[in-house]
Amino acid sequence: MTIDLEALYVDLHRHPELSFQETRTAGVVARHLAELGIEFEEGIGRTGIAAVVRNGEGPVVWLRADMDGLPVRELTGLEYASTARGTDPAGNDVPVMHACGHDLHVTALLGALERLASATDTWSGTVVAVFQPAEEHGAGARAMIADGVLDRFPRPDIVLGQHVTPLPAGTIGVRSGTQMAASDALTVTLLGRGGHGSRPHATIDPVVMAAATVMRLQTIVSREVDPRDVAVVTVGSIHAGLKHNIIPAEARLELSLRYPDDAARERVLAKVERVVRAEAAASGADEPPVIDVDHTLPPTINDVHATARLTLAFDRAFGEGTVVDPGMFTGSEDVSWFAREAGVPLVFWFWGGVDPAVYAAALAADRIASDIPTNHSPYFAPVLHPTIERGVDALVVAAREFLA
Amino acid sequence: MTIDLEALYVDLHRHPELSFQETRTAGVVARHLAELGIEFEEGIGRTGIAAVVRNGEGPVVWLRADMDGLPVRELTGLEYASTARGTDPAGNDVPVMHACGHDLHVTALLGALERLASATDTWSGTVVAVFQPAEEHGAGARAMIADGVLDRFPRPDIVLGQHVTPLPAGTIGVRSGTQMAASDALTVTLLGRGGHGSRPHATIDPVVMAAATVMRLQTIVSREVDPRDVAVVTVGSIHAGLKHNIIPAEARLELSLRYPDDAARERVLAKVERVVRAEAAASGADEPPVIDVDHTLPPTINDVHATARLTLAFDRAFGEGTVVDPGMFTGSEDVSWFAREAGVPLVFWFWGGVDPAVYAAALAADRIASDIPTNHSPYFAPVLHPTIERGVDALVVAAREFLA
Amino acid sequence: MTIDLEALYVDLHRHPELSFQETRTAGVVARHLAELGIEFEEGIGRTGIAAVVRNGEGPVVWLRADMDGLPVRELTGLEYASTARGTDPAGNDVPVMHACGHDLHVTALLGALERLASATDTWSGTVVAVFQPAEEHGAGARAMIADGVLDRFPRPDIVLGQHVTPLPAGTIGVRSGTQMAASDALTVTLLGRGGHGSRPHATIDPVVMAAATVMRLQTIVSREVDPRDVAVVTVGSIHAGLKHNIIPAEARLELSLRYPDDAARERVLAKVERVVRAEAAASGADEPPVIDVDHTLPPTINDVHATARLTLAFDRAFGEGTVVDPGMFTGSEDVSWFAREAGVPLVFWFWGGVDPAVYAAALAADRIASDIPTNHSPYFAPVLHPTIERGVDALVVAAREFLA
Amino acid sequence: MTIDLEALYVDLHRHPELSFQETRTAGVVARHLAELGIEFEEGIGRTGIAAVVRNGEGPVVWLRADMDGLPVRELTGLEYASTARGTDPAGNDVPVMHACGHDLHVTALLGALERLASATDTWSGTVVAVFQPAEEHGAGARAMIADGVLDRFPRPDIVLGQHVTPLPAGTIGVRSGTQMAASDALTVTLLGRGGHGSRPHATIDPVVMAAATVMRLQTIVSREVDPRDVAVVTVGSIHAGLKHNIIPAEARLELSLRYPDDAARERVLAKVERVVRAEAAASGADEPPVIDVDHTLPPTINDVHATARLTLAFDRAFGEGTVVDPGMFTGSEDVSWFAREAGVPLVFWFWGGVDPAVYAAALAADRIASDIPTNHSPYFAPVLHPTIERGVDALVVAAREFLA
Repeated sequence: MTIDLEALYVDLHRHPELSFQETRTAGVVARHLAELGIEFEEGIGRTGIAAVVRNGEGPVVWLRADMDGLPVRELTGLEYASTARGTDPAGNDVPVMHACGHDLHVTALLGALERLASATDTWSGTVVAVFQPAEEHGAGARAMIADGVLDRFPRPDIVLGQHVTPLPAGTIGVRSGTQMAASDALTVTLLGRGGHGSRPHATIDPVVMAAATVMRLQTIVSREVDPRDVAVVTVGSIHAGLKHNIIPAEARLELSLRYPDDAARERVLAKVERVVRAEAAASGADEPPVIDVDHTLPPTINDVHATARLTLAFDRAFGEGTVVDPGMFTGSEDVSWFAREAGVPLVFWFWGGVDPAVYAAALAADRIASDIPTNHSPYFAPVLHPTIERGVDALVVAAREFLA
Repeated sequence: MTIDLEALYVDLHRHPELSFQETRTAGVVARHLAELGIEFEEGIGRTGIAAVVRNGEGPVVWLRADMDGLPVRELTGLEYASTARGTDPAGNDVPVMHACGHDLHVTALLGALERLASATDTWSGTVVAVFQPAEEHGAGARAMIADGVLDRFPRPDIVLGQHVTPLPAGTIGVRSGTQMAASDALTVTLLGRGGHGSRPHATIDPVVMAAATVMRLQTIVSREVDPRDVAVVTVGSIHAGLKHNIIPAEARLELSLRYPDDAARERVLAKVERVVRAEAAASGADEPPVIDVDHTLPPTINDVHATARLTLAFDRAFGEGTVVDPGMFTGSEDVSWFAREAGVPLVFWFWGGVDPAVYAAALAADRIASDIPTNHSPYFAPVLHPTIERGVDALVVAAREFLA
Repeated sequence: MTIDLEALYVDLHRHPELSFQETRTAGVVARHLAELGIEFEEGIGRTGIAAVVRNGEGPVVWLRADMDGLPVRELTGLEYASTARGTDPAGNDVPVMHACGHDLHVTALLGALERLASATDTWSGTVVAVFQPAEEHGAGARAMIADGVLDRFPRPDIVLGQHVTPLPAGTIGVRSGTQMAASDALTVTLLGRGGHGSRPHATIDPVVMAAATVMRLQTIVSREVDPRDVAVVTVGSIHAGLKHNIIPAEARLELSLRYPDDAARERVLAKVERVVRAEAAASGADEPPVIDVDHTLPPTINDVHATARLTLAFDRAFGEGTVVDPGMFTGSEDVSWFAREAGVPLVFWFWGGVDPAVYAAALAADRIASDIPTNHSPYFAPVLHPTIERGVDALVVAAREFLA
Repeated sequence: MTIDLEALYVDLHRHPELSFQETRTAGVVARHLAELGIEFEEGIGRTGIAAVVRNGEGPVVWLRADMDGLPVRELTGLEYASTARGTDPAGNDVPVMHACGHDLHVTALLGALERLASATDTWSGTVVAVFQPAEEHGAGARAMIADGVLDRFPRPDIVLGQHVTPLPAGTIGVRSGTQMAASDALTVTLLGRGGHGSRPHATIDPVVMAAATVMRLQTIVSREVDPRDVAVVTVGSIHAGLKHNIIPAEARLELSLRYPDDAARERVLAKVERVVRAEAAASGADEPPVIDVDHTLPPTINDVHATARLTLAFDRAFGEGTVVDPGMFTGSEDVSWFAREAGVPLVFWFWGGVDPAVYAAALAADRIASDIPTNHSPYFAPVLHPTIERGVDALVVAAREFLA
């Protein structure tokens, strides 16, 4: 192995970058690709990179890793913890951390590329590696597509991707069907009428309107969705008013919605709109609320046949029992845009990053939820080994399964 | 009259200043006092001024005017509309407007002082004029008291004050008993547990906690206060969360409470605390919410005997029918600190600033609430005449009633 | 005095009758009227009685007492406590108690009639005594009017009435303007869609719809009515569903609304309708809710001039300090139908029935609300003396004030 | 076939009986068992019957059918629709309908018994047929166990049962793991303080307390349960108050809770209790609410190995594609008490009763939920063929799979 993967990972972890600002990260990737002699292009979709290893006839397999960090202040206490800062879209100076593990994704994909490029006698076909920016904004995949990545590189026959997750290191989690939820981000502006806090009758109180709306939105999941279906209606932010004694004119809610497929999306969106409008009417609002869909992420749906093949391939490579069904995740991803756009199958799997002994102890104590830091936590800290190795191996095994 | 009161008012209106920043205003007042040859001190309670006219034996009558403007962008379209800006306590650059009419209060008090000072043959006793800062923050009266105003000037036998209000110009509104409500400003911090928006079960959602709290707080007024009593529980601001898909760890509510007296205050505060704590418990919060009382304003209670004397005096001076019972106002004032601290009676009255024809038309159309801009509105614009004159006259009549 | 008023009261108290079933009570009244030689008619408005004492030229004064008891099981422990039972409108056998003091009203009116009839040399004019049924149903006054009482007897120049209340015995409470609230009784039927409790998504849950409606209705009083105005929105009953695991198709709410005048009535009714409809819409109801106004009671508004005359007359008769301002009562009465229909003034006052020492002790301990049983309580038990005497005297004084 | 199964079904459908009142039904079963010469006992668990076919060495297979109807007025319009009436536990005369298809269950089990009893050369072992009362009350299985059915008959090696459901006729639905939810029925009594509707401040309003509780209970499912888990919190009934203007002292909620296993049960029950207690505290209740668990149904968990064997057996017997995964049902059953008590595996499957063409049309129009009447609907009407035959065959195939 030419690349010291542990050193690479530690370096990336120390230097996280916010979405669409992954210039140093892309530079590190480019330097390694150049050293490996692999063909690549930079600056696709602003800060993305794609690389290609052409090895004769055969299927085209795309391997995707995302590169961006998060505006989180790292609290892991690790020797290599991030102290980086960045400028968020609102112009604020914020701490930055690889709290979602994309540093591991980049590390594993570079490792897998080296392995595949150095063993071209064992496979034929084409491997395209996509180092994607801005997954956290749900915008990077579409930016790369808009920038022509599907035309500038061999079009995929299959798209593969992976994500490190709080499963025991060594374990792979994958299921056919919906693996990650579709999601929408909505901003709802409730329009009331402001006035002095001592004279509520002269106002249309948007704080009460907002509170009633939040309470009513709960009933969509509790009453209107089949209890066996997955749906999430989160109000992630609520903002109204400047001070105690002034009733403001507006309230703003930011919602995050999750569902397993496009049909459920339509149903839930319609319900949210119905509730929001009716609650404004209940308040006697003069104007209906404004509902903006800020961004939409598609469901990450694993192809049933490709998933079955991959499951068996992982079993053969890593032993039976390595693959578990992680259930559907209610989090969302933008990787599937590549497969949707190309009209080809996708498989997206999870691989574990938690010390198995720690995991087992937490499980025994029924403290998984409280004791194992999840992605986006300031305490998120995958163990380096065997996490790095399993990430590399999984990509190599998966790529070979679909190459000739 | 030495002072051109209209010019003075227009000048003050063009140059409003935020609470405790009334340096230009105080300078204008000082210049006029000096020109009138009236004894005064500046810088009492940071930017306050007190002046005294000593005229032999007799009662000491305090006349109080407040001086500060509000962080409101003026929309009156008046030729003399304010374009001033100021720096609010949070350091933000904000527009400033005399949206509460304190410019009129200062104008009327200076006019009254000149009248009283130039007619010392018609009364005896002592008049103290208090130009108070920071009424809008509920802090100026206490700041002047803390700075010794009650000791540095003759202690009052009675405290008198007035406020311009959306009654027809010419009309005076006053009642005995509670004229303006007591109020408290509370900040409630609800403590949940943050997490990813797709995994609500791993969080204690403070947005839902806040919404449920707001809805439950409504029941204090609707169910727990005697329908015949005045009580207001306003949630003037609600803030939680940064973005759609992150459930925050906390929510912050700012409440403004109003009641007619100290006993009601205790009852309502206890109810608010009960509701806030129980709703946190309903959410399974690990920690109880934090409730801070940011500031407290006492009730403005007019002395029954002094109010009766004043009512008759106004009737004699302005004709029967001039005085109306405006009802209790749910807004609050800090003028009563002077009288409470000195242990003397207070009378605080309202005087009208709306063109009587406009008022009558709005009344006939049942559009008072919608058509007549109230104090704190960006459209608040008292007519100059006879508002200025009535404000001066009212102070003079009132002062003389209680002087010898 | 011919009539033994204490014996009469005890007899009536022992034999309460439900609304429109006051046949025994009416019989007792009729027997006494006959013994006194006073002209009367029975059966007016089903079980009502009116009597007339004609005494030459002069005003016609109507004195009204209501006669019905309540479906309450008496718990006073009094020697003369009621053990009576009756059949309520739904056909149920229920306990009956004079829990509102109408037995005292009848007693006092008979006593006053005897006094007036035996002293015709001290006044001239006409006294009409109305013994009204079914005040508790808000239906008796209209029933008597529909039955022609205003035509069959001399039309009033003024209508007077009184109600025993938990003030100290001896005290009279009266105010000009709204003395008792207007009220409406509404039944709201919320239409959902039923189904099995395990499949909420296949239903439109009327229990949640009802709960959201109840919570939202609170905001009418807490946010939409001027805090200085009196308004009550009570949901007195809520009913939906038969068992745990069946989601019902409907929910039914019964509301009692209170307001000081007809304008407020219109405003609040419109708000209630707005909230109820919007909450059904928020639930996605297929059909709008059904709102029925079951009955309406007008405000009891005391004529300002007549009240002033009466206040002075009571002061003269009973000493200054006898009359207090009881504030507006949020309970309602149907007495004003007589005055409204005739287009004449009304005065309706309260007189105290609590042992003054007991009252003073409760007041000192701030335990009035908890320790003094109010009207409709199963513990309601006016002291006999001086309550009976003061009730008689008040009617006589009041009648004479308005007679010649 | 001796028994005319269609005639038997039609007869049972015409004569449904309520829970624990299945005497006619049991009589019909007994008559057929007697005609078939099968050993049986009546009156087990009040109205239950068990029958046994002994056929040499081999496993003991229990086949269970439930017998009771529901208090539903049949609206199917079928020629053989029920017009029966019964007396419910509260003593009310109510219409009765086989709205859950238990008539089919009895028919199929008698048919299967005859088939097995007439083909004893094709299997060996013991078949026990359990005709259980009162499944709808969740009480019949335990009643039969309490009455010794597990001791009076050969103890099972496996328990099998089936339920007709709105799948296409011919289809069988079964899954390993939780097939039907565990459930609890709770009654919550909220204790307030009653009073007159015009004086809410003198009461602790249980209607508002109940409404707030219902709204807050929604957040358990919407926020506190993993969106991927199944949980239902239904408030099936809410009752408080007698009339518009009396605020009652109590409110009563009846809840139906659903979860996949015993651990989830404990978690959700704790959350419900937390919310209910906190909402009472938010209302300032003097006494905590009373929470009664009225009955508990265990989860119906299909043994993973037995379900796999059965799935393959059905595939062989009826063709591949016959068996579908119906998902977990949120409804509950008491059949698993037999297997839990005996400590043996259970398989409980569904079989379709809807005309396949009707089903396909509804599916195409996305109108399954609206157009296909489900169990407990007054329109529930399985097609007779091939539903009866498939029900018999399924039992015979299943029994033989586990017999020698």
